[in-house]
Amino acid sequence: MIVVIKNDSNPKQMDNLVKWIKNQGLRINLSKGENTTVMGLIGDTSKVDIDLLSSLDIVESVKRIQEPYKNANRKLHPEDTIIEVGGHKIGGSNFILMAGPCSVESEKQVITIAEAVKKAGASVLRGGAFKPRTSPYAFQGLRESGIDILVKAKKETGMPIVTEIMSEEYLDKFADVDIIQVGARNMQNFELLKALGRTRKPILLKRGLAATIEEWLMSAEYIMSEGNKEVILCERGIRTFEPYTRNTLDLSAIPLLKELTHLPVIVDPSHASGLSRLVAPLSLAAVGAGRDGLIIEVHNDPPHALCDGAQSLRPEQFADLVKRIEVILPLVGKEAIQK
Amino acid sequence: MIVVIKNDSNPKQMDNLVKWIKNQGLRINLSKGENTTVMGLIGDTSKVDIDLLSSLDIVESVKRIQEPYKNANRKLHPEDTIIEVGGHKIGGSNFILMAGPCSVESEKQVITIAEAVKKAGASVLRGGAFKPRTSPYAFQGLRESGIDILVKAKKETGMPIVTEIMSEEYLDKFADVDIIQVGARNMQNFELLKALGRTRKPILLKRGLAATIEEWLMSAEYIMSEGNKEVILCERGIRTFEPYTRNTLDLSAIPLLKELTHLPVIVDPSHASGLSRLVAPLSLAAVGAGRDGLIIEVHNDPPHALCDGAQSLRPEQFADLVKRIEVILPLVGKEAIQK
Amino acid sequence: MIVVIKNDSNPKQMDNLVKWIKNQGLRINLSKGENTTVMGLIGDTSKVDIDLLSSLDIVESVKRIQEPYKNANRKLHPEDTIIEVGGHKIGGSNFILMAGPCSVESEKQVITIAEAVKKAGASVLRGGAFKPRTSPYAFQGLRESGIDILVKAKKETGMPIVTEIMSEEYLDKFADVDIIQVGARNMQNFELLKALGRTRKPILLKRGLAATIEEWLMSAEYIMSEGNKEVILCERGIRTFEPYTRNTLDLSAIPLLKELTHLPVIVDPSHASGLSRLVAPLSLAAVGAGRDGLIIEVHNDPPHALCDGAQSLRPEQFADLVKRIEVILPLVGKEAIQK
Amino acid sequence: MIVVIKNDSNPKQMDNLVKWIKNQGLRINLSKGENTTVMGLIGDTSKVDIDLLSSLDIVESVKRIQEPYKNANRKLHPEDTIIEVGGHKIGGSNFILMAGPCSVESEKQVITIAEAVKKAGASVLRGGAFKPRTSPYAFQGLRESGIDILVKAKKETGMPIVTEIMSEEYLDKFADVDIIQVGARNMQNFELLKALGRTRKPILLKRGLAATIEEWLMSAEYIMSEGNKEVILCERGIRTFEPYTRNTLDLSAIPLLKELTHLPVIVDPSHASGLSRLVAPLSLAAVGAGRDGLIIEVHNDPPHALCDGAQSLRPEQFADLVKRIEVILPLVGKEAIQK
Repeated sequence: MIVVIKNDSNPKQMDNLVKWIKNQGLRINLSKGENTTVMGLIGDTSKVDIDLLSSLDIVESVKRIQEPYKNANRKLHPEDTIIEVGGHKIGGSNFILMAGPCSVESEKQVITIAEAVKKAGASVLRGGAFKPRTSPYAFQGLRESGIDILVKAKKETGMPIVTEIMSEEYLDKFADVDIIQVGARNMQNFELLKALGRTRKPILLKRGLAATIEEWLMSAEYIMSEGNKEVILCERGIRTFEPYTRNTLDLSAIPLLKELTHLPVIVDPSHASGLSRLVAPLSLAAVGAGRDGLIIEVHNDPPHALCDGAQSLRPEQFADLVKRIEVILPLVGKEAIQK
Repeated sequence: MIVVIKNDSNPKQMDNLVKWIKNQGLRINLSKGENTTVMGLIGDTSKVDIDLLSSLDIVESVKRIQEPYKNANRKLHPEDTIIEVGGHKIGGSNFILMAGPCSVESEKQVITIAEAVKKAGASVLRGGAFKPRTSPYAFQGLRESGIDILVKAKKETGMPIVTEIMSEEYLDKFADVDIIQVGARNMQNFELLKALGRTRKPILLKRGLAATIEEWLMSAEYIMSEGNKEVILCERGIRTFEPYTRNTLDLSAIPLLKELTHLPVIVDPSHASGLSRLVAPLSLAAVGAGRDGLIIEVHNDPPHALCDGAQSLRPEQFADLVKRIEVILPLVGKEAIQK
Repeated sequence: MIVVIKNDSNPKQMDNLVKWIKNQGLRINLSKGENTTVMGLIGDTSKVDIDLLSSLDIVESVKRIQEPYKNANRKLHPEDTIIEVGGHKIGGSNFILMAGPCSVESEKQVITIAEAVKKAGASVLRGGAFKPRTSPYAFQGLRESGIDILVKAKKETGMPIVTEIMSEEYLDKFADVDIIQVGARNMQNFELLKALGRTRKPILLKRGLAATIEEWLMSAEYIMSEGNKEVILCERGIRTFEPYTRNTLDLSAIPLLKELTHLPVIVDPSHASGLSRLVAPLSLAAVGAGRDGLIIEVHNDPPHALCDGAQSLRPEQFADLVKRIEVILPLVGKEAIQK
Repeated sequence: MIVVIKNDSNPKQMDNLVKWIKNQGLRINLSKGENTTVMGLIGDTSKVDIDLLSSLDIVESVKRIQEPYKNANRKLHPEDTIIEVGGHKIGGSNFILMAGPCSVESEKQVITIAEAVKKAGASVLRGGAFKPRTSPYAFQGLRESGIDILVKAKKETGMPIVTEIMSEEYLDKFADVDIIQVGARNMQNFELLKALGRTRKPILLKRGLAATIEEWLMSAEYIMSEGNKEVILCERGIRTFEPYTRNTLDLSAIPLLKELTHLPVIVDPSHASGLSRLVAPLSLAAVGAGRDGLIIEVHNDPPHALCDGAQSLRPEQFADLVKRIEVILPLVGKEAIQK
């Protein structure tokens, strides 16, 4: 950690600061330039309160050198984390496909889609039971009974399931869920993260709409610091000034994350775009960027002619996409899709 | 609601869409141009799923005309909402000052600051007991015992108290709290919002870092649609590309909100800037923009010489600021500060 | 164009507005709902001043239905524009690679790199002569003499050249340049765009750091409305809140642009990331997203051991990347690379 | 400047880097921690190419300590710059009002408005002759003849004039203009900035829509490094994700700029909002934030009933606003308005 001291700081304040830093078990490297004095703090600075330090009268600015995350940090854990779910591996040289309906509507719907996506190459079934909606007047999902339906589909098809939790209050409903998803809006719901850190289930942690990569990794750190080391990161688009696309899929983050963390990273091209016709190109783009899997919305043949679009692919479109993905995988150091 | 239909849509899809819209109790005004057909949907469109509609194959785009929020909407409730807390009025021509320490540290600290800010003109005491922190390794607040201290300070000074809740699980600890605050990171924690909507306490709803004004009002709507009509909005800075300031205080939103909603709006200049020396100018700016109050961090004389900055004002700086605010209030249609 | 009228508008103002609209040769479709009156404007609205309209006292909001761009609009020009440069085709089912050094340094450097990238599969040579730099103290490029060097390399290797112009004042220096590049910072330098519109050279128009897709297409429209129809769009990253990456490459925009415009679109993965090790994954991602080419920085073996990184690939890294690109092209409907 | 070296860097690369740094006349302070080695570069680092340095294989990250701007830097020039225009002072404890029509339409219009705003308290006349417009189909201003009209109004009323330049090609038309404005879109049109740096006229430099404060000051530096020290900065709103307001007026930047630079800073509340009814509250907010002046659009009584809104105030609204501003000035350390 680098602390830049103001020119006109008085020696007494400086002494106080030096004492405070040493009390935290840190060493100091002092460097005086013409206009500025720079302190290098040496040792474990992850607990230093950077906001407090920045606010001192004699401090001009503070810059972190060490990343504030430890459990999630590639430097301290060079090996890729590989997570096993229902016999499938996530992370490392493996590539995983999660697919399923946006919302759970009925047992028949879920099982029909599950069988179709399994046949096409997906190994984890996704489906929304608790649905976070901007409007209180919009459909909020089937909630508990949606989870019951997913569990039935799991028994029927053998596919492990992933679904979203919106409050730690409902944790006992997720006993048979294989991967618990934290949505973008709850990425900094710290009480929920801590509760999930005390479970022993893999957590799919979506990036918040306006979360920096560092904040995202710090949220993973919340889960990991409670003991649960199985976190899968999921990029799903960030909020920018662009109004034409619902979100901007941040694929620049993908190769960078590979350097920063050992955790698996997957991409959700369905929510990023909000338009089904953008899902295939963004999926291929995400595979080209070289990460560990995709989570894609697929729905079965629409019973009501209306719902023919949304952000979901039809099963046959999904199957065609999988074939193209398989060609790209060896180019980016990945083995065949985990089936 | 305006639905733009694609040029090449087939008549059968069009018929299906028309039927689906009419089933929702809406009327249709159809307008055919050279290149586009535009449908105007007339009636209560607040429950129409705009994402579903946008995703239809024959739909080019959907634009809302009516605001999706109702309880919070000025058009449907032209009169200012005025909320009473401990004999003080919030909203309308009233101006309120909330002040207190960033974190609750001890009974003595809180009471000392409370007395100082009360004397200077504040009428509500703020203080953080549960603290949302980006890092799991940072101090998380005194939590339950922090609330006990605030309640003691309330008894001692007669000031009503406002403090943040981070999970609906802790709601029973907030029985003696006068205003419950929802932090920026939880603005779309919908389970928490619904639980607060079932209480009968005023809610201070901070704007999320990347929340649009419409999303913010929809979060107020979550609370109000459960029966609790007492929501105070609090602007505290949004996330932009600018790295020099911690957040960008969005004062452009302030006069606009006056048109969109009847709810009171206050401003938090302390969190927006993160630097105590910016608090006074941003406070005066916020008062000039013409809204209903400020919530400001104030700390007492630092016992440890170090903590002499942060985003907090000293009591004497706060008192000086209040005097300047009082000069501006009549220029923006406000009465004297509620004391 | 949809004009939403306020509830309380008086009939005289309404009459004035109707007259003004009709004077512009437009027809009106009027639809009265309970709370709002909506006017649909039918006809060519591209010249209507939307800011003026929005600002009228009786107008609540204005929403465009028709895109304001015409020459660049896919709806009015369904066929892909294909641009020929030095015998190479850009657009349609063709895929083009432009490569070369960040800055032109010397004749030897440029020719060495040109030969290497040509051998690997690039068909257009890029190189910076006029360099826009944030700091006036940074190297501003070799300027005129840099262009002379590029022209020599063109003669030597037969490769057409692309380089950036920073002011219309220098246009005569670009007589032997095959494609003139407009940089991100000049995307809305309208005087420059108009001057380029009066040339008959293909223009490579980079997207501004904070330009919406619509503003970008309107800048293409500036060039095209002066008579020059040969515009190549180049996505190079947008500015977001994320500090870890220099810019966020907006690949979500790529498939969307295919729908909005018939112009070719290429991607610059070098400037987006600013880190050479991110160039390959972002290139493969961009190819997966399905567009018309890439422009990549390549430098020769560094004579000074220092410059071993930057955002440039070494020729052998570039050659390896090209081989992988060739595998992906048939998956996204592209023929072999234009060589 | 702080250079963080990677763990696994080899000694030869390190030697090369040290040599390269010393060749630039800088000293090095080396600090080895457990996981990282940190180099402090001491001396004038303003010419060091931070992008090049960042890109080196052995460098993990580079952080600037010294600001890259010098002429504009408060640290090197502690005294406020005060600029005199037509007998009026800009900067220091002075407060200036610039006002006038958005576009110059006719001699009569400009003179009528000029007289009205002068009477109300404005001392500089603004008016758009060359108009940058997103669309090539929109009105581009009266251009040269617009400047002639402004010059006539200057002779008639004695008010100095400020108007925008869009290309250095037109510089000779600006001989009688007192302050030359650079618009937001041209903030990084470096050729224009350099040309203006060679004039001896005050330059009003608007902040780019997505420009950081540092980039903005670096653009001022472009002008100043050519010899022209009279730069007035103008905040006019930045681009954020918020769609309800046209731009977000960044008042957080205002008190911060006072610390970073000695140059005068004014605020343009008209362009930030795009709505006349937001101009007054944003003006009062800007005055509260404590800077050096405002530039406001005012138009005379609309000859055509239509144009009754826009982002312009009517003269009587402007006069009322001025009276309220005068009450606030002494609270923020300013003298009466310069008239």
